[in-house]
Amino acid sequence: MKIAIDAMGGDFAPQAIVKGAVLAAKQFSDAQILLIGKQDEIQPLLNKHGVVPNLQIIHAEEVIEMGEHPTKALQQKQKSSIAVGFYLLQNRKIDAFCGAGNTGAMMVGALFSIKAIEGIFRPPIISHVPQLNGKTALILDVGANTDCKPEVLAQFAILGKIYAENVLQIANPRIALMNVGEEEGKGNLQVKEAYNLIKENKQLNFTGNIEGRDIFFDKADVIVCDGFVGNVILKMAESIYDIAQKQQINDNFLNQLNYEAIGGSPILGLNGNVIIGHGISSAVAIQNMIGIAKKMAESQVHLKIKNAFLT
Amino acid sequence: MKIAIDAMGGDFAPQAIVKGAVLAAKQFSDAQILLIGKQDEIQPLLNKHGVVPNLQIIHAEEVIEMGEHPTKALQQKQKSSIAVGFYLLQNRKIDAFCGAGNTGAMMVGALFSIKAIEGIFRPPIISHVPQLNGKTALILDVGANTDCKPEVLAQFAILGKIYAENVLQIANPRIALMNVGEEEGKGNLQVKEAYNLIKENKQLNFTGNIEGRDIFFDKADVIVCDGFVGNVILKMAESIYDIAQKQQINDNFLNQLNYEAIGGSPILGLNGNVIIGHGISSAVAIQNMIGIAKKMAESQVHLKIKNAFLT
Repeated sequence: MKIAIDAMGGDFAPQAIVKGAVLAAKQFSDAQILLIGKQDEIQPLLNKHGVVPNLQIIHAEEVIEMGEHPTKALQQKQKSSIAVGFYLLQNRKIDAFCGAGNTGAMMVGALFSIKAIEGIFRPPIISHVPQLNGKTALILDVGANTDCKPEVLAQFAILGKIYAENVLQIANPRIALMNVGEEEGKGNLQVKEAYNLIKENKQLNFTGNIEGRDIFFDKADVIVCDGFVGNVILKMAESIYDIAQKQQINDNFLNQLNYEAIGGSPILGLNGNVIIGHGISSAVAIQNMIGIAKKMAESQVHLKIKNAFLT
Repeated sequence: MKIAIDAMGGDFAPQAIVKGAVLAAKQFSDAQILLIGKQDEIQPLLNKHGVVPNLQIIHAEEVIEMGEHPTKALQQKQKSSIAVGFYLLQNRKIDAFCGAGNTGAMMVGALFSIKAIEGIFRPPIISHVPQLNGKTALILDVGANTDCKPEVLAQFAILGKIYAENVLQIANPRIALMNVGEEEGKGNLQVKEAYNLIKENKQLNFTGNIEGRDIFFDKADVIVCDGFVGNVILKMAESIYDIAQKQQINDNFLNQLNYEAIGGSPILGLNGNVIIGHGISSAVAIQNMIGIAKKMAESQVHLKIKNAFLT
């Protein structure tokens, strides 16, 4: 099992990434962790941590900066850590690729290298959502697709089910549609039609609509919404942690809303495992992102999705 | 100044409504509070509170229940407390009408009696949003219009500005558009176009996009979004208070996210002042809803809006 991470991506790269990779390598002794980036910057940082046998550097001499145009940067910087990461993923040299750098470049890199699985309309970004009772739900899309047709939302329901079953190990996950009311027939044109499409799919354990108040109260295992609504929810959830910090509240549940604890957001529906992290990712966030990558790779969720969409 | 409230509307009506009206009558001695509903049910409750000179009952012998179809119920129950309330408002016998009952009936009643101001596309429901630094912002729409064209969002910006200036007394309020990123050009087709329309309006102090993380951090005085997104935000915000309760967190700011403290949600863009309350409204919520109604009536915000839309 080989998991690679872009050592140059993120506001605190490469320091935080190297530190997070070391933490992950120690936590997951059965995985090989690969740090992709500038050898001369990474090696001195790594030396501080002594010998970590399951951690190695893959040299990449270029870096795509946060502000760069994704498509242009990927074309011009084929020796960048992001480009090298996707090259390795595409050629099956690694089982997952993680990065906390330029999100657009991670997304474009994924779509142009390993590509979306045939039959997938629009790969969504997903996020784990801690529940008050200790469970974990997931929400998708949280930002890749801000305009979604009803069929796209209905497909998110299928992708979410497969992820929940295989990565989160939830049997027969409850699928719910984010809406403005619980009753059937509520909502805008998009979700009304999506409701019908999801309901028609007898493979899904569709439990109907949920509302903004239900997100943390274990009303669903998979919360389906478009990337606009999901992004607002995700960022608002993160801000609850920021509020708790500011108000000096130390609460077990609110602490879980810290992006650090969540780690990273997988892109689903690709021919490979890709996880993108927060720009401000700390070492702990990187460690947890690698943890998600490992679970995805172990469960081979991308192959499960591929099989589900074989016609 | 006469403010009427539907005594029969809400899960805890008429008890909680009567109690809330008594609290409001004592708080606002310069206002006349009218309880609309069944005299024989209200009077005994009122008697418990002794003499409250600025509180009176307006008898209405019918009640529209929570589950009833709004339009049908209003047609069939013209002697209902909601129908009587709108009759009084339409005939200028009262300055504001509040109700925590059937939201649809409140909305339909408003649109069919006092009606939308000429030039208003879709009257939005607004909510006050407490800010961490003690200020109050407002968000609109929070649920009346789940499908909004860009022009409708642009008009919400104008309505929000007038409310913020007149009711919240904020000079030159900062208007922001809820989006998935701060940069111009972000978002779905709807908000991209709305961005341009709001930006073009030189009457508005448009500060650009804000994200889900910014809602409580005083980044804007008026947050513009469609009724779908706003409803998710509002209910998620309310749930933060529920989480705090469940986790036994007693925090000044989080306590303000209690719907009770906020009180009620005005409908803007009507020829009169209408405020709708949460179905579960307690006495304190009713008191605060009447407080908002009083501020709206005093500022004559509906006339300010009417003047702004005179052509």
